[in-house]
Amino acid sequence: MKIYLAGPDVFLPDAIEVGRRKADICTQYGLTGLYPLDNAVDRSAADPSLAIFRGNEAMMEACDAIIANLTPFRGPGADPGTAYELGYMAGRGKFCLGYSNDPAVYADRLRRIADVKPHAERLVDAEGLTVEDFGLPDNLMLIHALNLHGCALLMPTQAPGDLWHDLTAFEACVRLAAERSRS
Amino acid sequence: MKIYLAGPDVFLPDAIEVGRRKADICTQYGLTGLYPLDNAVDRSAADPSLAIFRGNEAMMEACDAIIANLTPFRGPGADPGTAYELGYMAGRGKFCLGYSNDPAVYADRLRRIADVKPHAERLVDAEGLTVEDFGLPDNLMLIHALNLHGCALLMPTQAPGDLWHDLTAFEACVRLAAERSRS
Repeated sequence: MKIYLAGPDVFLPDAIEVGRRKADICTQYGLTGLYPLDNAVDRSAADPSLAIFRGNEAMMEACDAIIANLTPFRGPGADPGTAYELGYMAGRGKFCLGYSNDPAVYADRLRRIADVKPHAERLVDAEGLTVEDFGLPDNLMLIHALNLHGCALLMPTQAPGDLWHDLTAFEACVRLAAERSRS
Repeated sequence: MKIYLAGPDVFLPDAIEVGRRKADICTQYGLTGLYPLDNAVDRSAADPSLAIFRGNEAMMEACDAIIANLTPFRGPGADPGTAYELGYMAGRGKFCLGYSNDPAVYADRLRRIADVKPHAERLVDAEGLTVEDFGLPDNLMLIHALNLHGCALLMPTQAPGDLWHDLTAFEACVRLAAERSRS
């Protein structure tokens, strides 16, 4: 089974090393992990961002599954690029797995960085926009996509000290993928 | 042509009215706009968030195209739920359109709310994570998905006074969809 390793990990200072660690874990379970090309494309190319997109899309096509890192990125929710890729893979009928190293529910995540208050039987932010309050860790489309197109989101009981380098929940996804691959 | 009207518009205090305005614009161009069910599902159901997901997914399946509102939502980038839906529709081979009422490039959007600085030939945020710096308004996966699976992102030259209620860029997307539908 080939697995697309999606996540904002590509933005880490040690992005390439993290990708190697993730791919190594896949190998230990008899699977092949493919890591997005964001850091492997020639930045002097005519249109490097388009080259990255084309490479990543081809890689997704070649994969049977995705493991999406949905740890909150620059806000209360998942990285929009990763969310796009999870949607693409769900749309292509691939097996969808995901994890978040932050187990807090969405409203609590937002409370940490912004004002959240009750208003007319809803929770709202400072702009008056509704805050999803279903007790889920992120937008319901992401959470139920995993439930219905693969396996439920995996999360630690407590956030690890290093949100971006702890691969325990990632490895648990790989284990589920390996079970699926044998069945 | 049936168009799925994706966006964080569903979180606005007047979400239902905004959906009605969007659907009316579609009708004026001879198209059918379908608006997500987040505000139309019985909140006392056994699992309302799952009911919303199932309804929205069925609605996406029934549509030929998506118009995604990618205006930044609680951070520098698009709403992750909307990004998921854009990915899903791209994966299903549907015609993909999108707009953002904020025309700023991604690095500038982030600069407004966080520290961004150059470091070793990259731009980084306060956590040291790379800031995409391709002169694009959002994550490259979203922007090029539109370029390659539909039409390039539409944006006003200047952000309108009311980011959430100005439908000029939305209407421009509808016009493109109508042209496509006649061709």
